[in-house]
Amino acid sequence: MTQQIGHLIDGERLNDGASTQPVYNPATGEVCAELAMASPQVVEQAISSAKQAFPAWAATPPAARAQIMYRFKQLLEQNQDKICELITLEHGKVLSDAKGELARGIENVEYACGIPELLKGEHSRNVGTKIDAWSEFYALGVVVGITPFNFPAMVPLWMWPSAIMCGNCFILKPSERDPSSALYIAELAQQAGLPKGVLNVVNGGVDVVNQLIDAPEVQAVSFVGSTPIAEAIYERSASQGKRCQALGGAKNHAVILPDADLDVVTNSLMGAAFGSCGQRCMAISVAVTVGDKVADALVAKLAPKVEALKVGPGTDNSNEMGPIITGAQKQKVIGYIDQAIEQGASLVVDGRTKSVPQYEAGFFLGGTLFDNVTPEMTIYQQEVFGPVLVVVRVETLEQAVRLINEHEYGNGTCIFTRDGEAGRYFSDHVMVGMVGINVPLPVPVSYHSFGGWKRSLFGDLHAYGPDSVRFYTRRKAITQRWPSRGVQDGTQFSFPSYSEDD
Amino acid sequence: MTQQIGHLIDGERLNDGASTQPVYNPATGEVCAELAMASPQVVEQAISSAKQAFPAWAATPPAARAQIMYRFKQLLEQNQDKICELITLEHGKVLSDAKGELARGIENVEYACGIPELLKGEHSRNVGTKIDAWSEFYALGVVVGITPFNFPAMVPLWMWPSAIMCGNCFILKPSERDPSSALYIAELAQQAGLPKGVLNVVNGGVDVVNQLIDAPEVQAVSFVGSTPIAEAIYERSASQGKRCQALGGAKNHAVILPDADLDVVTNSLMGAAFGSCGQRCMAISVAVTVGDKVADALVAKLAPKVEALKVGPGTDNSNEMGPIITGAQKQKVIGYIDQAIEQGASLVVDGRTKSVPQYEAGFFLGGTLFDNVTPEMTIYQQEVFGPVLVVVRVETLEQAVRLINEHEYGNGTCIFTRDGEAGRYFSDHVMVGMVGINVPLPVPVSYHSFGGWKRSLFGDLHAYGPDSVRFYTRRKAITQRWPSRGVQDGTQFSFPSYSEDD
Amino acid sequence: MTQQIGHLIDGERLNDGASTQPVYNPATGEVCAELAMASPQVVEQAISSAKQAFPAWAATPPAARAQIMYRFKQLLEQNQDKICELITLEHGKVLSDAKGELARGIENVEYACGIPELLKGEHSRNVGTKIDAWSEFYALGVVVGITPFNFPAMVPLWMWPSAIMCGNCFILKPSERDPSSALYIAELAQQAGLPKGVLNVVNGGVDVVNQLIDAPEVQAVSFVGSTPIAEAIYERSASQGKRCQALGGAKNHAVILPDADLDVVTNSLMGAAFGSCGQRCMAISVAVTVGDKVADALVAKLAPKVEALKVGPGTDNSNEMGPIITGAQKQKVIGYIDQAIEQGASLVVDGRTKSVPQYEAGFFLGGTLFDNVTPEMTIYQQEVFGPVLVVVRVETLEQAVRLINEHEYGNGTCIFTRDGEAGRYFSDHVMVGMVGINVPLPVPVSYHSFGGWKRSLFGDLHAYGPDSVRFYTRRKAITQRWPSRGVQDGTQFSFPSYSEDD
Amino acid sequence: MTQQIGHLIDGERLNDGASTQPVYNPATGEVCAELAMASPQVVEQAISSAKQAFPAWAATPPAARAQIMYRFKQLLEQNQDKICELITLEHGKVLSDAKGELARGIENVEYACGIPELLKGEHSRNVGTKIDAWSEFYALGVVVGITPFNFPAMVPLWMWPSAIMCGNCFILKPSERDPSSALYIAELAQQAGLPKGVLNVVNGGVDVVNQLIDAPEVQAVSFVGSTPIAEAIYERSASQGKRCQALGGAKNHAVILPDADLDVVTNSLMGAAFGSCGQRCMAISVAVTVGDKVADALVAKLAPKVEALKVGPGTDNSNEMGPIITGAQKQKVIGYIDQAIEQGASLVVDGRTKSVPQYEAGFFLGGTLFDNVTPEMTIYQQEVFGPVLVVVRVETLEQAVRLINEHEYGNGTCIFTRDGEAGRYFSDHVMVGMVGINVPLPVPVSYHSFGGWKRSLFGDLHAYGPDSVRFYTRRKAITQRWPSRGVQDGTQFSFPSYSEDD
Repeated sequence: MTQQIGHLIDGERLNDGASTQPVYNPATGEVCAELAMASPQVVEQAISSAKQAFPAWAATPPAARAQIMYRFKQLLEQNQDKICELITLEHGKVLSDAKGELARGIENVEYACGIPELLKGEHSRNVGTKIDAWSEFYALGVVVGITPFNFPAMVPLWMWPSAIMCGNCFILKPSERDPSSALYIAELAQQAGLPKGVLNVVNGGVDVVNQLIDAPEVQAVSFVGSTPIAEAIYERSASQGKRCQALGGAKNHAVILPDADLDVVTNSLMGAAFGSCGQRCMAISVAVTVGDKVADALVAKLAPKVEALKVGPGTDNSNEMGPIITGAQKQKVIGYIDQAIEQGASLVVDGRTKSVPQYEAGFFLGGTLFDNVTPEMTIYQQEVFGPVLVVVRVETLEQAVRLINEHEYGNGTCIFTRDGEAGRYFSDHVMVGMVGINVPLPVPVSYHSFGGWKRSLFGDLHAYGPDSVRFYTRRKAITQRWPSRGVQDGTQFSFPSYSEDD
Repeated sequence: MTQQIGHLIDGERLNDGASTQPVYNPATGEVCAELAMASPQVVEQAISSAKQAFPAWAATPPAARAQIMYRFKQLLEQNQDKICELITLEHGKVLSDAKGELARGIENVEYACGIPELLKGEHSRNVGTKIDAWSEFYALGVVVGITPFNFPAMVPLWMWPSAIMCGNCFILKPSERDPSSALYIAELAQQAGLPKGVLNVVNGGVDVVNQLIDAPEVQAVSFVGSTPIAEAIYERSASQGKRCQALGGAKNHAVILPDADLDVVTNSLMGAAFGSCGQRCMAISVAVTVGDKVADALVAKLAPKVEALKVGPGTDNSNEMGPIITGAQKQKVIGYIDQAIEQGASLVVDGRTKSVPQYEAGFFLGGTLFDNVTPEMTIYQQEVFGPVLVVVRVETLEQAVRLINEHEYGNGTCIFTRDGEAGRYFSDHVMVGMVGINVPLPVPVSYHSFGGWKRSLFGDLHAYGPDSVRFYTRRKAITQRWPSRGVQDGTQFSFPSYSEDD
Repeated sequence: MTQQIGHLIDGERLNDGASTQPVYNPATGEVCAELAMASPQVVEQAISSAKQAFPAWAATPPAARAQIMYRFKQLLEQNQDKICELITLEHGKVLSDAKGELARGIENVEYACGIPELLKGEHSRNVGTKIDAWSEFYALGVVVGITPFNFPAMVPLWMWPSAIMCGNCFILKPSERDPSSALYIAELAQQAGLPKGVLNVVNGGVDVVNQLIDAPEVQAVSFVGSTPIAEAIYERSASQGKRCQALGGAKNHAVILPDADLDVVTNSLMGAAFGSCGQRCMAISVAVTVGDKVADALVAKLAPKVEALKVGPGTDNSNEMGPIITGAQKQKVIGYIDQAIEQGASLVVDGRTKSVPQYEAGFFLGGTLFDNVTPEMTIYQQEVFGPVLVVVRVETLEQAVRLINEHEYGNGTCIFTRDGEAGRYFSDHVMVGMVGINVPLPVPVSYHSFGGWKRSLFGDLHAYGPDSVRFYTRRKAITQRWPSRGVQDGTQFSFPSYSEDD
Repeated sequence: MTQQIGHLIDGERLNDGASTQPVYNPATGEVCAELAMASPQVVEQAISSAKQAFPAWAATPPAARAQIMYRFKQLLEQNQDKICELITLEHGKVLSDAKGELARGIENVEYACGIPELLKGEHSRNVGTKIDAWSEFYALGVVVGITPFNFPAMVPLWMWPSAIMCGNCFILKPSERDPSSALYIAELAQQAGLPKGVLNVVNGGVDVVNQLIDAPEVQAVSFVGSTPIAEAIYERSASQGKRCQALGGAKNHAVILPDADLDVVTNSLMGAAFGSCGQRCMAISVAVTVGDKVADALVAKLAPKVEALKVGPGTDNSNEMGPIITGAQKQKVIGYIDQAIEQGASLVVDGRTKSVPQYEAGFFLGGTLFDNVTPEMTIYQQEVFGPVLVVVRVETLEQAVRLINEHEYGNGTCIFTRDGEAGRYFSDHVMVGMVGINVPLPVPVSYHSFGGWKRSLFGDLHAYGPDSVRFYTRRKAITQRWPSRGVQDGTQFSFPSYSEDD
């Protein structure tokens, strides 16, 4: 009998009797669980639980709230093997990669532990004579997060620890593909002492998402996923007057200058392009070589390594790539490769027919490498989200920057060089939100914030870090003057200016 | 021949030949100028001018940009009489009130002078071994501001000084009712050395607004006005993936506790309710009395003062109220008063038939005071934007707070008391963005930020102050590791965690 | 055989063979251990261990250092009973009070966990064209802390967690009276993974202190204790060019206004004056009554409660006061009481002859209450550090503030009132570093900073919180311009101004 | 008759009748004025004036204080020619250099304009249930600044604008050599509206300094000058329990790597070493070449330029160097050169006998260049403060850094390279407070802070910028809980922990 995956509502697992949807083990291609798809009633329950939990939670001093995060961090560390198993089972990524993902998630929990510091407002004595003013940051109420399959444990941890430490109650709608790790992690939070209702997890599809966005109790929406959905969610939230941050797709370029150490670059690109099968919004999918000499040498170094990529089930840490998340996605990637060939790209390594012994039904693909890709090709324009690296050749750094700036996405990028001027020119001119200088995956650390530019992010505040605290709070500005006994102020019909002595 | 009011495009006044619309002197009821309504071509010109000015302006060091603001502040001070004349001519408010408005606007210019401090990013050394990370805040590009009639000089100064100091180019669409002061002020900015194209002013109506929002070059939209339009603009901006902050309507309550000094309260309310004819988004339009004893005494003190309000042209500083902005708005206010009487409110002072000798055609109204208003009445629910103060009677502070929290708006509010617990209870529990404790108009000083809650503001960042710098910039996160000569890093397929020594 | 208390050097307990000094259990008056007094060689070892540990520790990324703090927090929580036993054994305070002390200490550890956030420098792009500037905060090297007997666990935790998280190596010289809890806690830090040498504990007296201050390797000195020693240490440190923060004595006044709830005040004062026998630098030792009516009523309420204070060994949680730290200190307190009587103060409750059955040799004193104390009396001028509360009568709040401002100390103070104006007047005018409004012991939370004014603190930065991070680091300002290939700058003999385009 | 230079006390010029001292025009060697040396009575007057001005000034809202700074900035700009004339007359530097100095000073005035932003404290709501805490920064009272001859206009502007904007009253003791520009600037501040007594200028020598430090009214001391005096002042201030920041001498090294563009380096070094005759605490006096090839090439490029340095009166802008400040200092520099020759340094260009036609009595020196200088030589160890550049040859960057780190001073330094790793290695490892990467004079911009390490600065806070605001203020921490009507708290004998719900 297949395992049932339910929801976490008001501190309890709930296996909703309504419709279900299979969850696959992508390494075997078999169904590993049935996922309950929340009915409107269940979504209502989650909202109602969150709403009820809110007043007491928001009134709990931040330093007291933080105590739960400290214990939660411990529990995450103690249960990391179990969490990583769940990630690998449903997502497919190699265990060591799952561990890396979780480590990054825990860093966000650490950041959230510092909430007393992060919630500080600004205090101004004497904005006018005997008048003080200060700001306070209040929780919004019920807020919602919708997260993608590719980092099933980490992306939820980008959102809810910060949101609830700010005093909000949170409803998480994880990916239908691999919901178990997020659910398990949410249970650990309960175990750490989180009051029921502060964090609810609801599984489902687009209907659940829409119901959550439309609910009057929901104050804000955080989303990470593809750009078309990000846009739709941003618009839907706004049409109801809500704040929203919606992170979308990416096409991340690595620029390789002639002075770069190509062995280092090759190693970096192998991990950045093929780690987690390229199913990362920060994956490098385009190598931009400056000068043909670099291009030729780089392709020569990459080809045998791509060919030799060790592909297999993520449960075996000696593998370098696990399977693609679904069969459909695997076919989509193959389609992009086919199209690229048609459109004239030079196929250097072909990963389409990779087969893993004993795992023939798994959704595996080998690594694919293209050379001579040009901006007009579909494989350059689209986010492939698969183990495909393409080389685009340019002649100058300026051209490389222009190429990147003309792409619709602006999530991450990096440059390989040891030249200070080149690094600064690149970081200064590139219209991308996260820039690495010799750092292939420039995911900001948890105490900075994550976000792309252009069509990679909709909203004005980035995810996690300082921006998330601002996103999950509402500013209140207080101006205070205590009355002077016996002093009568003259009526003031004119607009007051505190900087004068009044 | 009537004076023509045109646009400011690329540093030059432009009198567009297309359609025009009359601008009135509300004190006389006469047309004082014809306003050019921008054609699509003119709007295009403004956008194109801003777009062309952007790269050089954004690359100008913030400290150099600030020099223009220092000179601009001086010019505003030197020309304050002229500016206030323009405000009073077209808006009608009393000159001394115009001066107060301008003073507050200049404070925003002062804040913008501090841009080198305000644009500082965060730098972290050793996020991992030999890896540094920092954040930088970049200008967005071309941004747009749409401003209301009631503070024709101040609200534009809330927006564009901050926006352009952040490195953006700005297009201002001022109110059609009283555009001249904003236009004149923009010319002073040119005089202060602002490069052409950095600030453009375009006059027009809804078509111009829509064209601006829809233009692909426009990156962000700031709006101050009524809630329905704020919502529409927020949604329209979002549907194109743009960031927007849209400030809407208000219904600001003053709570009067029994321990308040009623002479002080009366004086405060007179200014806060009737200053500028109540046409302020921070005007107090509801007095919430706690206990009938306070209510009776307050009404007794208010009535003769409301009766005695000195109404007349704003050019005479001895007047306390000028005219309403338009005849239509005057009729709308009268309609609200009529309806309140029908719905059972007690009319204490009736300002409907006020007439000003020699200014019979002016849009004047006297002050109106209602007692025994209840939450169901239209005059309580709607933003009247006229010289009408209503008294709502409650029995406890808790009821007062509940009343306020149940109103759809949450812009400003204040409490009159000398009791510390009451003040803190109020500021803590009231769901309003700007709270005054014995401060009737708690407009935050320029170095804090302005914004309401609930349906008074759409977006996640408030206007001016710290929030505006965040709104008008895009965060870039840079992670940097310089290569070690001769050191080969192992390929890293797993997701990197910088906190380990790698 | 008596237990030996040694040092913690380079990660190991070391029982120095040199001279020893007895440590007493003040509840029994018996020696409970022999404390090794470090020889110059041992001090040298500590310095040398710290110096050697420094480079690797300073180069460890802050986020990695923080991991140790998270584990350390856990260990403190798990071992709190043991720690509190040690505190109570040697200091005498009641166990529940020891627990309160430890809880406050742990809050400082939590603050230190946030070090990645706290160490952020400021980054400015384009301070001039293509010139960037930023600041970084570096560890100082070896730093020293000298801590008092009254909070043997907490005060060390004010210092070293912040200091070592900043990257320093720390040498702690705890009080000779009750060193065991600090030593035990330091061992827990080792257990949490602190590399050896990062934290050393050296026991001893003035010679050890002087040797530490004079050692060229020592970069900074933190001290908490009495004012004469604070001054001496501040001067000694400065005479060697070192930074120092030295916190000294206190005479904390509570002002009671006529509108205060005297039951609340009485309860608050009982805890604030007699908790830990008044041996706290934040203890309230002076009640300043405004008006004789308040004074009479307050004394009437206090007297029976002071009389009824439950005094006995700290191991019994039902006691309200334990013993005084030493017999000598007990005699000193009695001397102050004798003198006050001679000088004309009205003795209301006399605690001098309190005896605790079965603990006759313990250093116990009962609570003492004086009325009609005046500023000329020794008991008003001196910090008594015993269970003695004096009442000074004044007529107005202004007089109360003047009284406080004329005292040489300015550590803490509080006011009891519900009047907003009174609270603000008091906090604004009182020349004291830590102010409570209806908070009798206004010890700032760990994420603010602790420090007095006037002769209560020497130095410019306060203890713990934000100031401590600044104290334990050195600012480095970096200005960077990468060369433009092929561009020759003109020689610049004039002093450069980056705000011009150069 | 010679002009008399007096003091500025309580808003008035005062020509004290006591002793005087000549001020020289170093370009002619003639006395250009007689400087009044303040008697103890005059110093008392200054202190008394400052003390009296303090309460009203400290109570003036920061935003109102800032208005004076805005006007003062304008006046400085309008009167820059006059100020620069005074600088050049008494100091000797070339007018264009004086203008650069003044521009930097004005930047500090701009920073001070932002005081409302800079004085913000931190506000924490709910540090415990219904308990708030915040910090406020108060002015210290009367503070003192003692400034050196080499930047007679700029260094005072580092100090007093920040100090007085923080609410302090300031007493400036400028250099006896060239006091006029500081005095004139102080008068401009009066003209800008500064209340009398807020800024006083007292001229004099060591007695005046000591009297100021010792005065009980004086709360803090800022000093810039030589290290021995800095140390003495730091110790003297500390021995009276006062805060002090004392900036001392420097020996600034420029490291030249083989990849640097030597034409750029040569030009940079010419300005950095010989500008203002090397009489700058940020002057480069040591060029550290990495590799003999670089050394040989650099010396070859430098020699003819040093030889050709145009020396003459500062009033002629075509000159590159003016005279040395005094004849005695000129002799001292010659002495260093003589000694270097004796100790074996290779004299490449000898500036000792430079004579300027028509200015034979002026204190001129030509530029001097030494090669093959070693760390043992006096000319390497001492701060020469003259137009002497020495080349020290090393083989590796590591050696260069070690050399710098072993010098007793650690003020400024820079590296010339285009290599990212080298720049980061250098800035990370060098124990110097201000680091330039391809920036020869890395004086931090006004919104960062200025300060050296090691024996170049005593104190824990740097000059100007954010640190100066902290230095010139005292932190007050307020914790507030308003009483709940009718609620009785239990007496709390244990130490309170706000993070629990109490």
